[in-house]
Amino acid sequence: MVLGLGTGSTAKHAVDRIGELLRQGRLTNIIGIPTSKKTQEQAISLGIPLSDLDSHPTIDLAIDGADEVDPHLNLVKGRGGSLLREKMVEGACKKFVCIVDESKLVKYLGGSGLAMPVEVVPFCWKFTANKLQNSFRNSGCVAKLRKDCKGEPFVTDNGNYIVDLYLKKDIGDLQVASDAILRIAGVVEHGMFLDMATTVIVAGELGITIKNK
Amino acid sequence: MVLGLGTGSTAKHAVDRIGELLRQGRLTNIIGIPTSKKTQEQAISLGIPLSDLDSHPTIDLAIDGADEVDPHLNLVKGRGGSLLREKMVEGACKKFVCIVDESKLVKYLGGSGLAMPVEVVPFCWKFTANKLQNSFRNSGCVAKLRKDCKGEPFVTDNGNYIVDLYLKKDIGDLQVASDAILRIAGVVEHGMFLDMATTVIVAGELGITIKNK
Repeated sequence: MVLGLGTGSTAKHAVDRIGELLRQGRLTNIIGIPTSKKTQEQAISLGIPLSDLDSHPTIDLAIDGADEVDPHLNLVKGRGGSLLREKMVEGACKKFVCIVDESKLVKYLGGSGLAMPVEVVPFCWKFTANKLQNSFRNSGCVAKLRKDCKGEPFVTDNGNYIVDLYLKKDIGDLQVASDAILRIAGVVEHGMFLDMATTVIVAGELGITIKNK
Repeated sequence: MVLGLGTGSTAKHAVDRIGELLRQGRLTNIIGIPTSKKTQEQAISLGIPLSDLDSHPTIDLAIDGADEVDPHLNLVKGRGGSLLREKMVEGACKKFVCIVDESKLVKYLGGSGLAMPVEVVPFCWKFTANKLQNSFRNSGCVAKLRKDCKGEPFVTDNGNYIVDLYLKKDIGDLQVASDAILRIAGVVEHGMFLDMATTVIVAGELGITIKNK
């Protein structure tokens, strides 16, 4: 089985568990496709056999977390900064299982008031950030460059920057919004994962809920 | 006047001429916005004052060449590899004048049989190239990684690769094709410049033709 390995605090537990099951011999014939350099390092340290999309363009199953989940199982991802590789890998999956706690459930994407990330080329990023902010001005959008702990621009695994969009209202038709973002020259990818998750597992105070597409 | 400075063999002449007119005092108050590192170096050597899109988000006029021009003044650009910065700069122009010789006129974009370039992130570029090729399989598309003179992948000013698409037939509605390309995770930008040129100047055997939008 070819398995997409997610990135972030939730996915980390899943990858740990896969490593454990392999070590115990309860899982065999697994090839992992990591969605970030960080997950790659984690998987190597656990002895999970790895490959990539060039060699395995079809993935049986991916497991990952998300930052927001809307009622239609559309997601916001990438607050960890790995949105592009996650989207490439999880877009190549037959099944994509997303694991969240109930605090991630939102009425509409952007509804948590936290960031909706957009990966942009560093060249004239301010110009691109302004275009993004203007595109969603009717939703009260504020665009901010993501910084690292030293106050320098956060740099993705692909050498790009992240512009975080903060929204006061919903942005309407998500496919229209997606295309509007992608049409801005300077944008590499955005963190909306539309119609990609096949299952979302929600951990809540009263137990586990499984939502299928 | 804020002036977008194109890249490539045709634009090089225009930039040389701007430098000459400045030196002669026949042009004054010009700020150039270069569309590549190469043009930036040329402009500096000519003493043209420079700025960037972050400081000058609106450009009065850009002058550049193109690789193909269709009857609606849609363009293919980027065979020189500078498509992303060209698109950012030329998308911010009030007027965009494109200068070509008549060999660049095509019935449809891709019609010259030469490359339609797509800038992609290096990560799993083969996967992205296959997706591009499959997207346009009905047009007989073949996708090839661009190589430099040493046989290594050509690297853009933004640290990305170029996948060149070769088409046997037209790709239909260009805006639909554009969105289809941009929706592929791993794609940064493509070389179709749709509805951007306001004037195309065509040099032919019988003289100059000026086409306005």
